[in-house]
Amino acid sequence: MNQATTTAPPKTATRPTLDDLNLSTGKKARLYRILYEHGCGNGTLLALPIDQGIEHGPIDFFPNPDAADPNFQFRLAVDGGYNAIAVQIGLAQRYYRRYAGKVPLILKLNGRTNIPPSDEALSPLNGTVDDAVRLGADAVGYTLYVGSPRQTDDFAQLRGVRRDCERYGMPLIVWSYPRGKHIETKGGRDSLYAVDYAARAACELGADVVKLNIPKKSEKDKDQPKPYSELDLSYEEGARRVASSAQNTLVLVSGGSKISDQDVLDKARAAMEAGSTGLIFGRNMWQRPMDEALEMTEKVKAILREYPAEPPRS
Amino acid sequence: MNQATTTAPPKTATRPTLDDLNLSTGKKARLYRILYEHGCGNGTLLALPIDQGIEHGPIDFFPNPDAADPNFQFRLAVDGGYNAIAVQIGLAQRYYRRYAGKVPLILKLNGRTNIPPSDEALSPLNGTVDDAVRLGADAVGYTLYVGSPRQTDDFAQLRGVRRDCERYGMPLIVWSYPRGKHIETKGGRDSLYAVDYAARAACELGADVVKLNIPKKSEKDKDQPKPYSELDLSYEEGARRVASSAQNTLVLVSGGSKISDQDVLDKARAAMEAGSTGLIFGRNMWQRPMDEALEMTEKVKAILREYPAEPPRS
Amino acid sequence: MNQATTTAPPKTATRPTLDDLNLSTGKKARLYRILYEHGCGNGTLLALPIDQGIEHGPIDFFPNPDAADPNFQFRLAVDGGYNAIAVQIGLAQRYYRRYAGKVPLILKLNGRTNIPPSDEALSPLNGTVDDAVRLGADAVGYTLYVGSPRQTDDFAQLRGVRRDCERYGMPLIVWSYPRGKHIETKGGRDSLYAVDYAARAACELGADVVKLNIPKKSEKDKDQPKPYSELDLSYEEGARRVASSAQNTLVLVSGGSKISDQDVLDKARAAMEAGSTGLIFGRNMWQRPMDEALEMTEKVKAILREYPAEPPRS
Amino acid sequence: MNQATTTAPPKTATRPTLDDLNLSTGKKARLYRILYEHGCGNGTLLALPIDQGIEHGPIDFFPNPDAADPNFQFRLAVDGGYNAIAVQIGLAQRYYRRYAGKVPLILKLNGRTNIPPSDEALSPLNGTVDDAVRLGADAVGYTLYVGSPRQTDDFAQLRGVRRDCERYGMPLIVWSYPRGKHIETKGGRDSLYAVDYAARAACELGADVVKLNIPKKSEKDKDQPKPYSELDLSYEEGARRVASSAQNTLVLVSGGSKISDQDVLDKARAAMEAGSTGLIFGRNMWQRPMDEALEMTEKVKAILREYPAEPPRS
Amino acid sequence: MNQATTTAPPKTATRPTLDDLNLSTGKKARLYRILYEHGCGNGTLLALPIDQGIEHGPIDFFPNPDAADPNFQFRLAVDGGYNAIAVQIGLAQRYYRRYAGKVPLILKLNGRTNIPPSDEALSPLNGTVDDAVRLGADAVGYTLYVGSPRQTDDFAQLRGVRRDCERYGMPLIVWSYPRGKHIETKGGRDSLYAVDYAARAACELGADVVKLNIPKKSEKDKDQPKPYSELDLSYEEGARRVASSAQNTLVLVSGGSKISDQDVLDKARAAMEAGSTGLIFGRNMWQRPMDEALEMTEKVKAILREYPAEPPRS
Repeated sequence: MNQATTTAPPKTATRPTLDDLNLSTGKKARLYRILYEHGCGNGTLLALPIDQGIEHGPIDFFPNPDAADPNFQFRLAVDGGYNAIAVQIGLAQRYYRRYAGKVPLILKLNGRTNIPPSDEALSPLNGTVDDAVRLGADAVGYTLYVGSPRQTDDFAQLRGVRRDCERYGMPLIVWSYPRGKHIETKGGRDSLYAVDYAARAACELGADVVKLNIPKKSEKDKDQPKPYSELDLSYEEGARRVASSAQNTLVLVSGGSKISDQDVLDKARAAMEAGSTGLIFGRNMWQRPMDEALEMTEKVKAILREYPAEPPRS
Repeated sequence: MNQATTTAPPKTATRPTLDDLNLSTGKKARLYRILYEHGCGNGTLLALPIDQGIEHGPIDFFPNPDAADPNFQFRLAVDGGYNAIAVQIGLAQRYYRRYAGKVPLILKLNGRTNIPPSDEALSPLNGTVDDAVRLGADAVGYTLYVGSPRQTDDFAQLRGVRRDCERYGMPLIVWSYPRGKHIETKGGRDSLYAVDYAARAACELGADVVKLNIPKKSEKDKDQPKPYSELDLSYEEGARRVASSAQNTLVLVSGGSKISDQDVLDKARAAMEAGSTGLIFGRNMWQRPMDEALEMTEKVKAILREYPAEPPRS
Repeated sequence: MNQATTTAPPKTATRPTLDDLNLSTGKKARLYRILYEHGCGNGTLLALPIDQGIEHGPIDFFPNPDAADPNFQFRLAVDGGYNAIAVQIGLAQRYYRRYAGKVPLILKLNGRTNIPPSDEALSPLNGTVDDAVRLGADAVGYTLYVGSPRQTDDFAQLRGVRRDCERYGMPLIVWSYPRGKHIETKGGRDSLYAVDYAARAACELGADVVKLNIPKKSEKDKDQPKPYSELDLSYEEGARRVASSAQNTLVLVSGGSKISDQDVLDKARAAMEAGSTGLIFGRNMWQRPMDEALEMTEKVKAILREYPAEPPRS
Repeated sequence: MNQATTTAPPKTATRPTLDDLNLSTGKKARLYRILYEHGCGNGTLLALPIDQGIEHGPIDFFPNPDAADPNFQFRLAVDGGYNAIAVQIGLAQRYYRRYAGKVPLILKLNGRTNIPPSDEALSPLNGTVDDAVRLGADAVGYTLYVGSPRQTDDFAQLRGVRRDCERYGMPLIVWSYPRGKHIETKGGRDSLYAVDYAARAACELGADVVKLNIPKKSEKDKDQPKPYSELDLSYEEGARRVASSAQNTLVLVSGGSKISDQDVLDKARAAMEAGSTGLIFGRNMWQRPMDEALEMTEKVKAILREYPAEPPRS
Repeated sequence: MNQATTTAPPKTATRPTLDDLNLSTGKKARLYRILYEHGCGNGTLLALPIDQGIEHGPIDFFPNPDAADPNFQFRLAVDGGYNAIAVQIGLAQRYYRRYAGKVPLILKLNGRTNIPPSDEALSPLNGTVDDAVRLGADAVGYTLYVGSPRQTDDFAQLRGVRRDCERYGMPLIVWSYPRGKHIETKGGRDSLYAVDYAARAACELGADVVKLNIPKKSEKDKDQPKPYSELDLSYEEGARRVASSAQNTLVLVSGGSKISDQDVLDKARAAMEAGSTGLIFGRNMWQRPMDEALEMTEKVKAILREYPAEPPRS
């Protein structure tokens, strides 16, 4: 193996456009709506997720109790001009009607509580692509636990979702998360190895869009398989590497738990420089009062406006 | 019967809003997109139909041969800022992809050639609600031949479409056309009796939106059942009467064959005054060169801008 | 055949009770709600039908234009304390939600316009038992054109409805109407022969409740098959005869077109004396202003209160 | 994290109304019947559960052997004027027919014996939503073991039930119970953390109504995740907190094992003060002779009458 | 109407390419095989049909008895290097195996005998798209009788075929034939009006490829609707007109009954000049001995080689 080529990060951060994706008419119509008729309207994507209520429980609403009411996030998504909001079936069914059409809906199809440990993680379907169609959603979200001992069930479950997405022309966004006891022995869920593998896996299994974390360095990096264990990429290089590994699957970078405002903006910048299509920032947005959340939203959108992509031509 | 009350036209031309319609979340999201995110964006609806190719054949393209290429109407719909374009499955499948998301699609599900006479008319399904979902359409259209000897088959066929619309949250627009040999002996297809019945029938059978003609006076008016045969309503009163008979089903007034520009604008005004939600004008728009078509579109939209409806609140 | 027994009217007008009907749990729960938790609450049934909009068109609303708005009938049904309201799918879907639970819903499953003649009548399904369940209805209605040239299709269609009613525990009310060119040569649709046959047919085909007209005498009575052509029953005797022919199927007497107030009350009395369970009166109720409609409702209910039936014991 | 905001209990105990719930027509009709046509008829809900026979075995009938006969509870529900009775499929099928329509039925769909330990609890479906429709039920109940190692299977099973509930317009009541070995290491099933999570999970997964316990303090409270381990809420504050976490899902507070009469009344009061819609009290009601049970029922209903909610307007 | 513009034939004879067709991956793969890996390999299409056995009976084999053996046509197709052979299910099943892969198969799905008259023509399905997939076919053929009194059934039947073609990525070739008693009163099946309508209808209904006749002049031309009755187009102009009316549906010109060799070559030339993609010539090819048939094939292919189309780029 040529060590020189393996260690060099991808040279280009050009991101794929809708024209590159071989999308069916319906998938294209829905992605166009998300990318060009909402948010900055320039082909970037800023999504507001509110699936923490099932993934972490009400614990995430303590910093801003108003955010326990899903109307808070729906209002933020509409008033802040997000490209989309991502919620579980219960919230979609009960709350979206008031905001229907004002902000595109991503129906998050699966989800779990974090009460059981994640060493054998599998996220069960709580909703279906049929539900997404019925509710007027413009995309579905699916959490794939790459490398989990139960990935056999996970891939099979994803296959069903993907097939329904084809049938209905529904874009498929995969939350591609390395997880489970085995990945923890190979550098951990946030290692370059893990995220890079997750990026490629989403592309291989048929995602239209993939949600990724930017890899983090840790003491466990040495446990990664070679040559990952020998790489020493900067934060930005890691971001470019994993975005590139997703190939022509559109990349969204996730925000994770709350960090400082400057860190949020730096992450947004790094993501876009790396060739991502956009961001999916939740707690960093709604774990603060509405006026501050709107202000932060505007700052992030200012960055996104610097990274326009031409609308599709064909 | 109290003649005084029977001859008085409906007193109000207030048109129903999305809040009145008891729409499911998905239907609401899709109708909101059509009504508030395209066209004038004020709750009015200007649709461009291009189903004449199957209904009348290429004959309708002689006045403007450029219009034989479906790209002409798609470009007109996008550049003119229509709320939606209505086409058969073949055109949707072949041409919409390039414009996907830029203008909402109404998939016209059924259609027929006019080579056989319409005395026993029934319009067969050429596409399905599944197709509409798959192509990212925001509504489906169905031609119902009210009063045709084959209305039994027609109603049954519509039932299947309606059920699928419920299942998928897809708005159902009914082209409600009195047709067949029996209506011709009762005043004819354009009589007040016929159109009034067609308006009510669409509401009874579950249309969300109904496309109607404005009744025309003719020598056959005396053949209408009483008390219709004794009414003498003006054009405007007739328009109000039939719009009112559709109850809270949204009304679109159809344009029909090409008339003078002033007549088009007068019809648009009369329709909106009568409580319609909008217009579905085809030949009057695209049977002229693109620049003139865009100009005429703008004139019609100027009228629609005078009839805004508040966006839904709940 | 013993002429004496054939000409004697049935001796008893005792009407069947829920205990007689061998109802499944679900059918019983729903019929109990209609019979004992609404209306007079004494096992009688007063239903308000509003399917004339599809069966006759807006023509029926001329005497009271306010009644063209379905809210008129829904309000009348709620405020007047009817046992149920009977509507087509479109009105149920669009209007019932506001009144849901306040008055039981009978979803009228089939219906047709009267633009084509009824010589080969068949009423197509516009809704399904699934729709009825989904909308929280407590019964379904089905128009059976007994003796029509198309009764083969009609019976087959009814079979499907009946089977779904069994599956879902949904009471089945059959509008049992003699119709078609053949019955017109045998005394006509309102003859004793015709209605008597229709009553039995509903029972034979699995109706839980049957809606009948009271037979009318006419010049065509002599065309009835023997011995009907030789019978000379009074109005009351005719009513008893046909109610008796329905056996333990519950009987509702229909009101038909508008008649004088006294005739309405006489018909109500005759129906109950004849062993009917109740009345389904539409135009005679809502073809007048709301206050008069409520007043008339109260007069009819006063009669129904005289004919209580014990609630079911087992 | 702002400690001040995190420790403060939610400020309002206003409970959601039917208008807030975005219910389909059928769900609304059925919930209206339960809430406004039975019990106190004021929008509160008092349910009588009798699923202890499967969950605990005949052991629960020792204090009042008469209660082993399901007719005891059915009679109590009818004579005591409960809003609904909740039973497994066997009892519904065998006993409900006699009481059909007199008291609304909640068909409890799943259930298990407590012979195996609950460390990997999953409650299997013993009935279906189809059964519920067929029996004329007005709601279904489902026990969800939040946080169980088998929650993956549980969520998937619930998804099927929820989808059928959508299809049939059937209200879904989730018994949301934290359970399994993992929750026992995080404060236990009755901890604030556990119940709070369970309340939110029911909302996220599409429950219309959620049955909750009021959290209890214990020595294991310190094992809860932060900040729960640092909170010190009173019984009433805990009740308000979890009711609030259910957002616009209607809350029923469960009674649990038999306690003193005063404790029952205090719990009822605390539940209603906390913003619950009602109570589901079983053993505390029927583990006593009929006359005492009716007396206790009346005392609880006296409290419910103090908490009326306006009937739905739209 | 501007007479000048209406009478002018379309100005361009540019034919659509695979890039214009918005084909799914599977349809494109199969059409590419037909167009670029067989025949002239230059994007033109020469197909050999052998469905005359069912459409006309053995009568067509009298001129060359050897052609009664389907092996004759299969050998001709392989040895002559055709792009495809089109046969009914029976021949495909029995004979294609020997030639499988050597020449692409078009499975002709429907067909009829010409024993009944064609005034109410409808061609029943004898095979399915499933059969085509199973046999390794690269396209299916469907005869649509445009304007037949039974077009309602025909369109519905085509809808099913089209849907299956979408599902399986199978190209759909429509034999678009004006037929039935009504078209005979409007200029007849070969009139410009009839063929022009048929070309558009195929495009509207979702054909990927359409087989057309070149219009013929006749005494009945005056019976065509205006302005067709007033047009006087040459043979070449007529060919261009109908090819243009198919828009971006690929056009194949049919050969019809046997004509002189020079007429065959002139028709081939006219078809390609008019913007067709190719030819489907049967009797003119195989109603002669093998060596002559191969010679004639070569002459036609020489013409096709003059009309290459660039392979698809995207």
